[in-house]
Amino acid sequence: MNFASDTTAPAHPNVISAVLSANHDTAPSYGADPWTNKAKNALCDLFETDLAVTFVNSGTAANALALSLLCPPDGAILCHENAHINRDERGAPEFFTHGGKLLLLSGDHDRIFEDGLKAALKTIDRNFVHETPADVLSLSQLSEAGTAYDRALVSTLCAMAHEAGLHTHMDGARFANALANTGASPADMTWRAGVDVLSFGFTKNGAMGAEAVVLFGQHAKLFSSLEARRKRSGHMPPKQRYISAQVLAMLDNDLWLNLARHANAMASQLAEGFERSGAVLKHPVQGNEIFVCLKEGQETQLRAAGAQFYGWLDGSARFVTSWHTDPSDIQRALAALA
Amino acid sequence: MNFASDTTAPAHPNVISAVLSANHDTAPSYGADPWTNKAKNALCDLFETDLAVTFVNSGTAANALALSLLCPPDGAILCHENAHINRDERGAPEFFTHGGKLLLLSGDHDRIFEDGLKAALKTIDRNFVHETPADVLSLSQLSEAGTAYDRALVSTLCAMAHEAGLHTHMDGARFANALANTGASPADMTWRAGVDVLSFGFTKNGAMGAEAVVLFGQHAKLFSSLEARRKRSGHMPPKQRYISAQVLAMLDNDLWLNLARHANAMASQLAEGFERSGAVLKHPVQGNEIFVCLKEGQETQLRAAGAQFYGWLDGSARFVTSWHTDPSDIQRALAALA
Amino acid sequence: MNFASDTTAPAHPNVISAVLSANHDTAPSYGADPWTNKAKNALCDLFETDLAVTFVNSGTAANALALSLLCPPDGAILCHENAHINRDERGAPEFFTHGGKLLLLSGDHDRIFEDGLKAALKTIDRNFVHETPADVLSLSQLSEAGTAYDRALVSTLCAMAHEAGLHTHMDGARFANALANTGASPADMTWRAGVDVLSFGFTKNGAMGAEAVVLFGQHAKLFSSLEARRKRSGHMPPKQRYISAQVLAMLDNDLWLNLARHANAMASQLAEGFERSGAVLKHPVQGNEIFVCLKEGQETQLRAAGAQFYGWLDGSARFVTSWHTDPSDIQRALAALA
Amino acid sequence: MNFASDTTAPAHPNVISAVLSANHDTAPSYGADPWTNKAKNALCDLFETDLAVTFVNSGTAANALALSLLCPPDGAILCHENAHINRDERGAPEFFTHGGKLLLLSGDHDRIFEDGLKAALKTIDRNFVHETPADVLSLSQLSEAGTAYDRALVSTLCAMAHEAGLHTHMDGARFANALANTGASPADMTWRAGVDVLSFGFTKNGAMGAEAVVLFGQHAKLFSSLEARRKRSGHMPPKQRYISAQVLAMLDNDLWLNLARHANAMASQLAEGFERSGAVLKHPVQGNEIFVCLKEGQETQLRAAGAQFYGWLDGSARFVTSWHTDPSDIQRALAALA
Repeated sequence: MNFASDTTAPAHPNVISAVLSANHDTAPSYGADPWTNKAKNALCDLFETDLAVTFVNSGTAANALALSLLCPPDGAILCHENAHINRDERGAPEFFTHGGKLLLLSGDHDRIFEDGLKAALKTIDRNFVHETPADVLSLSQLSEAGTAYDRALVSTLCAMAHEAGLHTHMDGARFANALANTGASPADMTWRAGVDVLSFGFTKNGAMGAEAVVLFGQHAKLFSSLEARRKRSGHMPPKQRYISAQVLAMLDNDLWLNLARHANAMASQLAEGFERSGAVLKHPVQGNEIFVCLKEGQETQLRAAGAQFYGWLDGSARFVTSWHTDPSDIQRALAALA
Repeated sequence: MNFASDTTAPAHPNVISAVLSANHDTAPSYGADPWTNKAKNALCDLFETDLAVTFVNSGTAANALALSLLCPPDGAILCHENAHINRDERGAPEFFTHGGKLLLLSGDHDRIFEDGLKAALKTIDRNFVHETPADVLSLSQLSEAGTAYDRALVSTLCAMAHEAGLHTHMDGARFANALANTGASPADMTWRAGVDVLSFGFTKNGAMGAEAVVLFGQHAKLFSSLEARRKRSGHMPPKQRYISAQVLAMLDNDLWLNLARHANAMASQLAEGFERSGAVLKHPVQGNEIFVCLKEGQETQLRAAGAQFYGWLDGSARFVTSWHTDPSDIQRALAALA
Repeated sequence: MNFASDTTAPAHPNVISAVLSANHDTAPSYGADPWTNKAKNALCDLFETDLAVTFVNSGTAANALALSLLCPPDGAILCHENAHINRDERGAPEFFTHGGKLLLLSGDHDRIFEDGLKAALKTIDRNFVHETPADVLSLSQLSEAGTAYDRALVSTLCAMAHEAGLHTHMDGARFANALANTGASPADMTWRAGVDVLSFGFTKNGAMGAEAVVLFGQHAKLFSSLEARRKRSGHMPPKQRYISAQVLAMLDNDLWLNLARHANAMASQLAEGFERSGAVLKHPVQGNEIFVCLKEGQETQLRAAGAQFYGWLDGSARFVTSWHTDPSDIQRALAALA
Repeated sequence: MNFASDTTAPAHPNVISAVLSANHDTAPSYGADPWTNKAKNALCDLFETDLAVTFVNSGTAANALALSLLCPPDGAILCHENAHINRDERGAPEFFTHGGKLLLLSGDHDRIFEDGLKAALKTIDRNFVHETPADVLSLSQLSEAGTAYDRALVSTLCAMAHEAGLHTHMDGARFANALANTGASPADMTWRAGVDVLSFGFTKNGAMGAEAVVLFGQHAKLFSSLEARRKRSGHMPPKQRYISAQVLAMLDNDLWLNLARHANAMASQLAEGFERSGAVLKHPVQGNEIFVCLKEGQETQLRAAGAQFYGWLDGSARFVTSWHTDPSDIQRALAALA
């Protein structure tokens, strides 16, 4: 009953098998290996377009590298005030952008909406040298509240950003969960909706440690700069094949999506049980995260039964499910509340 | 017959087995898992001392993080002009130190010697604000020429550096090969010789991607800063157990040292064969790298036989052996020259 | 009738005379000249304590250098959301701190209060590597709304910051105006109230371009780091005497304070006239800045009469007086409203 | 008899007069004042071309800002190993470029020559991600040895750099002295010879503190980035008129060139006297700096007579003349050797 985080889960067996299978013979270093090439092709298929991509082993690295491509040192990134890039990455975006600023927006359930973005874009004056103009809009999918942006909202926000001269980034650490929830296709949720660069996370979803930085459309020409930044930041491990092999395993036969569907289903069951028990959901459950205001006594009951979860700053409790969550975990947790 | 680099080798089967074994149940994220703790303890045993350590997945990351702990943005690092940190890391030390300078020393076979260091230390004037004083001495073990520093020279150089107020760092990407060559113990080659911080590489030696940043003695108190920098640079992957498990496998039963001994032995055999063939070694072979001036025709013969290796800027050819190099590879290469 | 900014004013004649007087003979460069030494001694007298100080030619430089001494790259600075360091310095603090974050507080009339600071300090967990803990509290005196912190509030806030392990900085671009308003002594408003480092501005108050970074108490030992950062950022002009001479002129016979008193008096008269005319002050006038919601037609009347001033984002109009504002300017402006 | 540096000289009286004359009325801040506009126009006339320019108060700032426009964080700057930007600016180029590298060339009398540059350019491989390719060639005019590049050499080197895809920068801290020596026109020595960006120094030559960053040709479009960087680095003082007025005074009636001619003439006389006395010049005297190996006893004689000068690392003594050097200073110095 570990609901502490999806990062506490082990890797899916297929991922380990793929690593094992890749472990033979010599292979070119630094991404010139066949697994890396195959992983790129698999992503082109998945996204129904040509694209450029590189693979790293942490989501913070993926986000920071992506943002550093889009935001100059004297520029800024618009994001939600609770975005992971603002709250939980120890200043990685500031480090990789060499001091770029994060300009923070509010919005219910940790999402940005049209009004908030409009107001922020209106203040931009690129000729006024004293203030830092925004260069990037970054959306978190899932948001830190576990909510998903639907395709239409992504599309609206990206169009507004583009019109104001901004680039767009999606932090897709839980991209799979968002797609499993919304039913949108990878292409529809990203480049067709105006996303320029995507951090596509596989780690929380079942890999050992594998994240993709995906450059769509015209932004693919930033690839050589991305590779230089990757090397310079120590994110170009010589035996790249072991990261790419993980991605291949995840993409094979839609494993990534099926694992996310399972995690989401587990979260839905748990959330429904919580509501039946009288606890109140803090945010809509649109992925594999539940933020819930427990009734008095429930926390004690759950912990006594062995459930692991975090108390949140807003007073709620956070439960995260994963590909590894067993239905019996849900049943035991809910039984503890009965 | 792939002598292009030890990074082209696959991981040793024990490493993969260890990763497989670690792949069960949930475990705390970000290094709070039992594998990470065990790997730390194993290193304490190996180095015969208490120490602080963190694990990352590339040598560039290990070096850059280590140097950023020791060199402030307005400081400098003394290293050999051919050091990997200067030539092959795309400015990673400059990035992680926020603009620290590398001050370059000469020295035969890419090693620093007493005279060169003495001259460099003499120019330091910490009260002269215009010039950048050195804060760190960084030694590469093996050097970029494949040579090893013996324990006595490390000890002499570190003592000189400490007396001048510098910290000391060893880039041990091929630390195992150096120890296999010199016969020195890990403790004797590092903290007992005055090394403050070690980048201890396992990747080239047989891991998938695992490097340790080891803080000795008083420098262990920099650990919390190291962790903040690790997070900030994206080098704190959530499922840390998969890196730590690799380290455990490498340390178990002296696998790391035995693999290095094998690689070194292969290099010795190849080097001897080259010399017998009339080719001339550019540098002493003291690890798993050979730099050799081939005779006319030899390059063609070797490539025709399927040998892979790099031409070097100085006109020599570089051959690198690894744990994966088979004695038959050596025989075939030398047969091509007969 | 130029109320656009106090930076549009020329320098006070005494300042120019001092520069002229300093312009003879050779003198040591880079701050080793007698003017710089005298200016330091004059500041020691003014602040009734020993201190370390350096002089630069812009307030942004003074703030950014000061903050970079106190906030490491992976640290953060608490400031008001409208602070000049956040809104109007194009990311200078982020540049000089190498990516430190600004954590923004709210508070009426652009001041920080006990409650806001308390809440922010409570969230600091220095052992939680994912979030960026605050290292500095920065107070703007005057605030961006033209309000002054009184001595008691500075003292309370600094004590809270110190207790939580933070350093304290005061952005005193209009320090003189704040002292003229509150009547506090320089010492009482700074080190006796717990300010560690002060940016003391003379430019807006009557100099050509001269600002002091003052290090109090234990923080004086950061002086050599400050000098290295000053050189490294290009803020150590060789002929330093011309900046120091300005400071000397300003400090002589309390010129700095008398000029601020004049500017404040002009602002008071103008503000009173605005109120009499039915316009509504947006913020209390506690220095030389007025933010006022003009009645319909008043803006037109003022501009027709030749008054220069800025419209503000919140819909108010900003009027800034200076040492150079003539009482007749005030009379003409108010006459335009009659 | 102060030959320590041209930075020890006071400002020329015309410069102070110009500052005094500019000290009336209000004027727009941050460079929107008429003096700044006039200074720009005067430079267009001087360089016989349209150009973009900004003014700062130190040469280190001018160089670092200029280089940061041309060299990305993962790029490099080719310069002489003894260049001021490498030896005497405490890492300012590294700070402003966010970690760009300086790649050091040798060359007699601290100048770069065709051979050295050719060899360096040959190693550039922009597709090899591990090494840092050069993006800029920076030439120092005068060099740190007091020698001047003639127009032809500048032209050759810039053409080579451009062909290899590099930008070109000239550190003209003593540009006036170089032109006075070579007789080349400002245009011929810069944009017509292929210089993209010039740091044009007035401080050493007679100003209080004024340096121009001049962008030629296509590089003028970097102006808005330059202004953002200037603000961000604290080099946009509000009362910009006082810097621009200095530039105007220096340009008026060729004062800048006449002052340099005087300084050069003084250096020539002193150098000739040294040679007559049996001392040996270390470098050709092509500006206002003399590096001389004094005969035994001469240093004592000179110091006894009150001459101030610096001993250099190479064992020579450095004498710098300025606009303020009086012929009687030369006579007294030489008399001391008689």
